[in-house]
Amino acid sequence: MPVNLVAPDPASLLPVAGVRLGIASAGIKKPGRRDITLIELAAGSRVAGVFTQNRFCAAPVTLCREHLAHGGIRALLINTGNANAGTGAEGIERARRSCDAVAALMGCAPEAVLPFSTGVILEPLPIDKILSALPAARADLAADRWHDAAHAIMTTDIVAKGASRQVRIDGRTVTVTGIAKGSGMIHPNMATMLGFLATDAAVAPALVDSLVREIADVSFNCVTVDGDTSTNDSFVLIATGQAGNAEIADAGGADYTALKAAIADVAIELAQAMARDGEGATKFMTIAVEGGRDRAECKQIAYAIARSPLVKTAFFASDPNLGRILAAIGYAGVDDLDVDAVRVWLGDVLVAEHGGRAASYTEAQGAAVMKEAEILVRVVLGRGDAAATVWTCDFSYDYVKINAEYRS
Amino acid sequence: MPVNLVAPDPASLLPVAGVRLGIASAGIKKPGRRDITLIELAAGSRVAGVFTQNRFCAAPVTLCREHLAHGGIRALLINTGNANAGTGAEGIERARRSCDAVAALMGCAPEAVLPFSTGVILEPLPIDKILSALPAARADLAADRWHDAAHAIMTTDIVAKGASRQVRIDGRTVTVTGIAKGSGMIHPNMATMLGFLATDAAVAPALVDSLVREIADVSFNCVTVDGDTSTNDSFVLIATGQAGNAEIADAGGADYTALKAAIADVAIELAQAMARDGEGATKFMTIAVEGGRDRAECKQIAYAIARSPLVKTAFFASDPNLGRILAAIGYAGVDDLDVDAVRVWLGDVLVAEHGGRAASYTEAQGAAVMKEAEILVRVVLGRGDAAATVWTCDFSYDYVKINAEYRS
Repeated sequence: MPVNLVAPDPASLLPVAGVRLGIASAGIKKPGRRDITLIELAAGSRVAGVFTQNRFCAAPVTLCREHLAHGGIRALLINTGNANAGTGAEGIERARRSCDAVAALMGCAPEAVLPFSTGVILEPLPIDKILSALPAARADLAADRWHDAAHAIMTTDIVAKGASRQVRIDGRTVTVTGIAKGSGMIHPNMATMLGFLATDAAVAPALVDSLVREIADVSFNCVTVDGDTSTNDSFVLIATGQAGNAEIADAGGADYTALKAAIADVAIELAQAMARDGEGATKFMTIAVEGGRDRAECKQIAYAIARSPLVKTAFFASDPNLGRILAAIGYAGVDDLDVDAVRVWLGDVLVAEHGGRAASYTEAQGAAVMKEAEILVRVVLGRGDAAATVWTCDFSYDYVKINAEYRS
Repeated sequence: MPVNLVAPDPASLLPVAGVRLGIASAGIKKPGRRDITLIELAAGSRVAGVFTQNRFCAAPVTLCREHLAHGGIRALLINTGNANAGTGAEGIERARRSCDAVAALMGCAPEAVLPFSTGVILEPLPIDKILSALPAARADLAADRWHDAAHAIMTTDIVAKGASRQVRIDGRTVTVTGIAKGSGMIHPNMATMLGFLATDAAVAPALVDSLVREIADVSFNCVTVDGDTSTNDSFVLIATGQAGNAEIADAGGADYTALKAAIADVAIELAQAMARDGEGATKFMTIAVEGGRDRAECKQIAYAIARSPLVKTAFFASDPNLGRILAAIGYAGVDDLDVDAVRVWLGDVLVAEHGGRAASYTEAQGAAVMKEAEILVRVVLGRGDAAATVWTCDFSYDYVKINAEYRS
């Protein structure tokens, strides 16, 4: 059961000038399921992306990188039900054919199309089914289809994920809308996730490139469900430039700061939604590590806690088995960590200090925090000023069930 | 259910001249449970150990390191039910008191005693219970108690783990006997494991020191259940020198080779037994990675596969979801890996090559291998001559159940 997560109200997902979306059913995995999403971008849109670090990256990821280097992106094609990963040269060929078909339909170059796939790995992409569904997706294009698209890109997600924000920039109302999918094989760089954020703000290309990285670092790269990094993870940021504002070109200016805050807000809400909807999740956990020498070591410790099956099963059981948290801190790989200086809070209860359980701590205090559906684990390292936060969920019987039966 | 694992026949665990073991019940966690093991070593025994890399190492690990530096070890004290980890200065003090008490009882120096604890973390060691059980443990000392000791050191283990080998060296019969415990929080450097191996061979101290490291590297450091490195892992090698052979001092000689093979044999059997008895295990998996540039990168990839929750749940379901294996290879962190050169076998079935599914592969072949209780995953990297093997088990409902209910 997703933790404190409901699907967005259709009206809450605001159209973004310059973006139209169309949905269709290609019957890739199940007949009748909406599994194809086509996104059309106005001419002049700036697009940047970050992708999985997995060496077995999927064919569409390879093509996205290639096409983004060309620039001038005009369309995105997303399919669920098949990841087109571990499919070798034939997989690249089929992804290319899908771009060719979209290009022919939309009247743009094949390099102006970004393909995305998510689903089962190592199965050939059913390209003929996809091609035959494209005309229907194109006929469906409209500005107000974000809500439907949020549903169409889901795989094992229970709840659709989308969010919008508006902000005033240069006297104009600028809109940011994003959708994402992902609930398993979730670990950063990136999660098994697809995320698409668009704004109608006019932003200089170099800033779109740096923004997508900065935003990923504080959102999608801060979430883990099972520690598995997918072959297909992709996060794309689109700036259509249709809002009428003077192009934002100064990363130090107020306009940039305001836009970045709105984009980060949407991205963080979507990233947290993935952990809330993590496969089998019954708890949403925030792991905040502070007082580190640098952000990297804070993230390293936060992830060691967040991906420990022992920590995650203890949270599932609402058991304040704090020793498992200390053990994870200890094996995180920060070799010169002085454990006597580390303090750990569960919610606002100090549970560990001086290398052991806090004198003031009682099991009843820990148990009270563990009963909550949302739990904060706060670790203070006491060796610097850096911090990092990671979101995750617990590990339940249903995680095993979902992943044991995924292909059946 | 442990996978192809039965407790050793009592008669199969051979006495080692110079070693006596005594068991007692201190009622640490449950009244009447045998939770204290005392091991007495003959004067002149050489002892070496390797211990957890966890920064939150347990108090007994700290004392073991300190006392091994002194040398002249005469006794080992092992308790279950409490790990004495995350217990700060008070934990050290209590471990020291247990050594003092053993020393008084046995007539040796406190530094001649090695303490070991396993069980719940972050709870104070019930030192008074332990102290009052020591006389009974001492009264119980006998050479033929290895089998009972194998049972007394168990925590969540279902099956006791012990093995013996004999080998002829210098015209004498030399015995190697070992016992171990561990089935969860198992990941190398080391697993949540305790392992005690003794031989009556006479071996030069420097060789005992190097042997314990070399043996750990091919046995206990090749097993993972859940990727969690414990605070208490300890592996100790004892050479009592009572067999009457001329002291082995040449690491290049035939005597050393023969002894090392026998010790490795016992250690590997015990290490594999931990994965066979992994919490909730229904399958025993061997992950063999070959053709790497060095052993480190082979181990890195083997562990990425072995600790992936997605791979482990697929094996639990007997589902040949090979894409998850490829994904794990891809995110293992070998940045310049050419995935097109990687070949993957499931048992003797070639399942992946050229970056995708092998042309000859059929789902029926994969399903046939997955039905077995013991499964070999073989990965050939095609970039060198190094290799590494890791043993693990699958991830079942029972893993979650055992770890959600551990303290209840």
